[in-house]
Amino acid sequence: MRLEWELRTGTRTEFVDLTDRVRAAVESARMREGSVLLFVPHTTAGLTLNENADPDVLFDLTRALERLAPLQAGYRHGEGNSDAHVKSSLVGCSLTVPVSGGRLDLGTWQAIYFCEFDGPRTRKVRIYLHPAPG
Amino acid sequence: MRLEWELRTGTRTEFVDLTDRVRAAVESARMREGSVLLFVPHTTAGLTLNENADPDVLFDLTRALERLAPLQAGYRHGEGNSDAHVKSSLVGCSLTVPVSGGRLDLGTWQAIYFCEFDGPRTRKVRIYLHPAPG
Amino acid sequence: MRLEWELRTGTRTEFVDLTDRVRAAVESARMREGSVLLFVPHTTAGLTLNENADPDVLFDLTRALERLAPLQAGYRHGEGNSDAHVKSSLVGCSLTVPVSGGRLDLGTWQAIYFCEFDGPRTRKVRIYLHPAPG
Repeated sequence: MRLEWELRTGTRTEFVDLTDRVRAAVESARMREGSVLLFVPHTTAGLTLNENADPDVLFDLTRALERLAPLQAGYRHGEGNSDAHVKSSLVGCSLTVPVSGGRLDLGTWQAIYFCEFDGPRTRKVRIYLHPAPG
Repeated sequence: MRLEWELRTGTRTEFVDLTDRVRAAVESARMREGSVLLFVPHTTAGLTLNENADPDVLFDLTRALERLAPLQAGYRHGEGNSDAHVKSSLVGCSLTVPVSGGRLDLGTWQAIYFCEFDGPRTRKVRIYLHPAPG
Repeated sequence: MRLEWELRTGTRTEFVDLTDRVRAAVESARMREGSVLLFVPHTTAGLTLNENADPDVLFDLTRALERLAPLQAGYRHGEGNSDAHVKSSLVGCSLTVPVSGGRLDLGTWQAIYFCEFDGPRTRKVRIYLHPAPG
């Protein structure tokens, strides 16, 4: 099963928590065992797992990624978003999350985040439910 | 189904676009729904998704990775390619791409790249077609 | 099939080689074709593939990650482990490894590592065997 969601981001860098949405998709499909593939069909965005409790972690992650890929760094690409392309390759656009016993098998503190690196934009996230065979 | 391709890279850092090859594999297997697992059995190379249009994006990504993992940085490993090992762990060697409706479910601007970080070399890329059950 | 392993790490940053354990799990399940999903349910740890021969590669990788995400960098998060959260998002917590012909389809020099970034701690790693359908 494939679902596609549209997201509207509001700032240049933003983390959108998808955990509840993914959880609801797994539950309404009554999937018991397998995995969920999340996929972002963009090249200046990404997906990551990180802490769901203290928003300061996302603040620190944002700043750290800015240090690793600064907005200006003598880039050649003319659109002014090379930093976002670099962040996308560092964090990744494809993320597999396990499902077990009918629920997302995440850790207590883990959330699934869509990562906007070149917002504000309208974005898509696709999720694919892959039940284990048999 | 498992395929293995051999690639010959020509420079130290190089991005080889695999998209057409992967697309052809999905089509000739008549796979409808599921995913393709791409895997690089090397520790100084990787796989990433990024822009397919402007080659300057790959130029900027190459430079950015060089800043993150410089060729020389007081490394201990004696082969002179520690930077390539670091880049490999940052970008990753395993990549899952969705298939839907009989085609690779990529975004308009996305290409699948093999990343050479310690070329020129002869390299292998393996792809595994994993149709969704049922 | 889902397995959960407990690991006890001994230092702040540590790479624990899981390859033999994963190999044994694939063999005892008599799985022939498919993939193994490894998943770390933590936000200050990760999973990576890298060299299995020279431990200096792991030393260099440790140092490189420390440069990319230093222990102190004006972070806001009050637990003193923001660097570990950043490293976790860079390296990733979800890793898919192919299985073919009844064995892990790794390269000669590849090992699967659990990455501790905020040890010493007791950690969990989960693995899910996903045989190919049919």
